[in-house]
Amino acid sequence: VEAEDAARLRDLVDPLHAADIADLLEQIGPSARRDFLHLYSPEIDGDILSELDESIREEVIEALPKEVLAEAVRELETDDVVDILEDLEEPQQAIILSALAASDRVAVEQAMAYPEYSAGRLMQREVVVAPEHWTVGETIDHLRSAEWLPDQFYHVILVNPRMNPLGYVTLGRMLASRRDVRLRDIAEDSFRTIEATEEEAEVAYIFNQYHLISCPVVDENDRLVGVITIDDAMNVLDEEHEEDMLRLAGVGDESSISDGVLDTVKSRIPWLLVNLVTANIAAGVISLFEGTISALVALAALMPIVASMGGNAGTQSLTVAVRALATRDLTGSNALRVVRREAGVGLINGVVFALIMGGVAWALFGTPLLGAVIGAALIVNLLVAALAGVIVPLLLHRLGLDPALSSGTFVTTMTDVIGFFAFLGLATLVLL
Amino acid sequence: VEAEDAARLRDLVDPLHAADIADLLEQIGPSARRDFLHLYSPEIDGDILSELDESIREEVIEALPKEVLAEAVRELETDDVVDILEDLEEPQQAIILSALAASDRVAVEQAMAYPEYSAGRLMQREVVVAPEHWTVGETIDHLRSAEWLPDQFYHVILVNPRMNPLGYVTLGRMLASRRDVRLRDIAEDSFRTIEATEEEAEVAYIFNQYHLISCPVVDENDRLVGVITIDDAMNVLDEEHEEDMLRLAGVGDESSISDGVLDTVKSRIPWLLVNLVTANIAAGVISLFEGTISALVALAALMPIVASMGGNAGTQSLTVAVRALATRDLTGSNALRVVRREAGVGLINGVVFALIMGGVAWALFGTPLLGAVIGAALIVNLLVAALAGVIVPLLLHRLGLDPALSSGTFVTTMTDVIGFFAFLGLATLVLL
Repeated sequence: VEAEDAARLRDLVDPLHAADIADLLEQIGPSARRDFLHLYSPEIDGDILSELDESIREEVIEALPKEVLAEAVRELETDDVVDILEDLEEPQQAIILSALAASDRVAVEQAMAYPEYSAGRLMQREVVVAPEHWTVGETIDHLRSAEWLPDQFYHVILVNPRMNPLGYVTLGRMLASRRDVRLRDIAEDSFRTIEATEEEAEVAYIFNQYHLISCPVVDENDRLVGVITIDDAMNVLDEEHEEDMLRLAGVGDESSISDGVLDTVKSRIPWLLVNLVTANIAAGVISLFEGTISALVALAALMPIVASMGGNAGTQSLTVAVRALATRDLTGSNALRVVRREAGVGLINGVVFALIMGGVAWALFGTPLLGAVIGAALIVNLLVAALAGVIVPLLLHRLGLDPALSSGTFVTTMTDVIGFFAFLGLATLVLL
Repeated sequence: VEAEDAARLRDLVDPLHAADIADLLEQIGPSARRDFLHLYSPEIDGDILSELDESIREEVIEALPKEVLAEAVRELETDDVVDILEDLEEPQQAIILSALAASDRVAVEQAMAYPEYSAGRLMQREVVVAPEHWTVGETIDHLRSAEWLPDQFYHVILVNPRMNPLGYVTLGRMLASRRDVRLRDIAEDSFRTIEATEEEAEVAYIFNQYHLISCPVVDENDRLVGVITIDDAMNVLDEEHEEDMLRLAGVGDESSISDGVLDTVKSRIPWLLVNLVTANIAAGVISLFEGTISALVALAALMPIVASMGGNAGTQSLTVAVRALATRDLTGSNALRVVRREAGVGLINGVVFALIMGGVAWALFGTPLLGAVIGAALIVNLLVAALAGVIVPLLLHRLGLDPALSSGTFVTTMTDVIGFFAFLGLATLVLL
């Protein structure tokens, strides 16, 4: 179909949800994508653009005729336009801004004035408000006569004349109440607002912790400037997870499966370089003991076992700690107890694997002392691994850095160096 | 405060949100927790129980007097009761079930009849429905006269007399429409239902992909049996992420920062054991080349560099692939292209680091051939790492297994074995 029949293609694609069309565009190759856009571009709408992955979106926007792009962007709510604009270069931003109606353009420009990754960027400016002295009946009449309402809204926010939010009423309670009931009497008891300058990670945390559906956003004078809905918060939560996971693995956090080869290389080389340096440090430790190794070559075969067990145990403890820091289950008040627990875990694991591996080494090489050396080295290294796995991310967190970023390298460097040093050092002392 | 004054404690704790009280309980130590519960238990309500982490929840339920527990559970909606019951042992389940009102007990037991991790367990059975021929006015009058409505609902679901869902109307549109408008004329165009036997991971995916707020759940006859709301879906998404992250690190996916030492040891030992076996395989490869190493001990120091670079590159490519499989950005239709891209990335990274490390080895040891050997081994190993990182999870996924589980060990075993073999093998051929 791809190479010919525009009408046929439209018939196939039109019934799909915008998110599925975006996935389709992401998954076909670059040249198929060009053909697809060539045939389908008049039908591309704003929702499809919103759903696209950044790297593909830029390509699609470039390929679209200006009128189509203008039409597509005009349909979107301001928070979605801001989301698209953020990732574009200056000239493309200008094209999109000029396509917007004047009032929308002002709204989008105001949103772009908030710092990146802030609540101000995330919120939509379209809000439904009512004075708190209104009755349900008055509010319903007002909504019925409104020319325009947001696609999705879940609360009516109560405000005073200075636009300070005072509470909110769920639409469900409003529908279930008689017309003469005052809004203030059916407002929810728990009510919180978010500052426009708040970080979006904090916003996602608040939504998840307090099971919010939508939350008003206020400026520094506590005046209502917008509202964030749960779908945006869910999106942020998803991105934060992805970031943590990719950072733990030492991959640039913007990387995606649809990046090209060179972008991918660029996102992966930095941490491989760091790893090269740290691997050379570990190699330096080994070369201190070249004399020992040449006297007993079996050590060369056994030493990676100690390092690898330490690396694995360190990664386990690190991942649990990074996750717990992200969900705020690990805080200053229980840090000491968690560190103590990790020490216990490291010690027990150390003893267990010392017994197993010590026995294996003894059996293989017939030297009980060799078994004792590898066992002792394992105890030391697994203890260090468990402690480093929790202390390194705690320290990074306290320094205001992202604990997911670079902890992995610190921890495995530590376990490699300590592992080789303990094993070869003990061997030198005991076996030679 | 902890050891004396119940009234004072209540004053401090009562203003907190249930989620925060639960966090507080999780973060204090076991003995402080006992004291806290002793003083505060009459005030513990269902929401606090819902928010608690499983491992702590069991402890709290045991500590609570039966009347308090019964009271607490009775306030909850059925989906929350099911969530609590799932993680308890039989006798505790029976206590909670007997505390429920008869109708709720039936609803909970029906929900428990659905398989674990299914939509049927996740949904609440309390739904707001209306026949599609009703007008807005009739519906509002019906809601106003209803004795009981769910805490949170965002749609009125349109049904026919056989309870097959036909569409839904958002509360916002209902409020904004005149009383004589028919519900069928303001129903949303896009409407989907979820089967009660669907897996919860699929549910989370659908909510995230299509930006749903709530979604009707149907049985095998397409009859409405409940509704899932976005806060439950967000929770599942969060748990799925945690599972992926912990599994990638080889940690039991139920483990939490508040587990005791022994539970933690139990959740970590299995993968450390697997790693011990694979590390011994790598050691076996090294011992094949003991002759080569004793002839040139520098090899012993350099060989972990090749293995470690491969392990890191493999983890990078693996993490991106596991994440892309979870978000369905990596599917059968683009797998081949992604594999080809990884091959390109592996080759380029291989050449880059071969040049760097080859140069370093040459400079350090003054032997250009040694530089060439480590360079060639790095190219081979980084290529294998990039490919294994994407092919292993793809294969596991195709076999219906979780790609996050155990891929890490497969990939690093492969890079260790290939790394040692390529480096020491080439060294034997070229340098001796």
